[in-house]
Amino acid sequence: MVDTPSEPPPAIETRLILASRVEHTPVVNRDGESIGHIADLSIDRETGEVVYAIMSFGGFLGIGRRFHPLPWSLLTYDPREGGYVVALDKQVLADAPHYDADELRELGGPTHPGYGSIIDYYGAYGTPLI
Amino acid sequence: MVDTPSEPPPAIETRLILASRVEHTPVVNRDGESIGHIADLSIDRETGEVVYAIMSFGGFLGIGRRFHPLPWSLLTYDPREGGYVVALDKQVLADAPHYDADELRELGGPTHPGYGSIIDYYGAYGTPLI
Repeated sequence: MVDTPSEPPPAIETRLILASRVEHTPVVNRDGESIGHIADLSIDRETGEVVYAIMSFGGFLGIGRRFHPLPWSLLTYDPREGGYVVALDKQVLADAPHYDADELRELGGPTHPGYGSIIDYYGAYGTPLI
Repeated sequence: MVDTPSEPPPAIETRLILASRVEHTPVVNRDGESIGHIADLSIDRETGEVVYAIMSFGGFLGIGRRFHPLPWSLLTYDPREGGYVVALDKQVLADAPHYDADELRELGGPTHPGYGSIIDYYGAYGTPLI
């Protein structure tokens, strides 16, 4: 939507949420430590499934900003934190597969070389994936 | 994402597309007639499924703008049109269930009263729904 929401999403009341409400939402770890924020969502055209939430990580004024695709199933919205909690250490997330803005647009689905590395990476930490 | 894309999405090369690339994309009917554009996506928090593409319809400078939730399965991207083709008459889309911006945020999932009316409406036109 054209209007960027200035406040975080409300407590979960309905099962549906607008993509525009997910974007800009902070991502924190289990200790409440800020890790980044959701910059975008990556959607499977054929099934309509959100495959990744794209976490923006680091950078300054957009320079050196990296995008970390997080499997959607890793995110849990916590209204107390006003953000999504990911049960992984900050370093694990920092070391995860990441892309620059141009690469992100080319990121493909299950047949894309990057796909396996993302799933394998998070799968190795015992996180329940799709 | 922060950067709004100025050009339409490219021809389908990967199965994944960024939400930011879907938003702002024109919606046309089978005759190539412009109907509106995608303003947002409505996502099921639990399954990660895109339930509706939210089509913006009419209005001027945001005043009187109405949002029509379209089942994702109705949309077919056509690179020749540079937009999503929906195989329904413009009047059918104009008459479909619609919401203002505040109502849109409250739109819920399968247990929401609005959900049945949307599915019933499009289902009556013989369109294949989820």
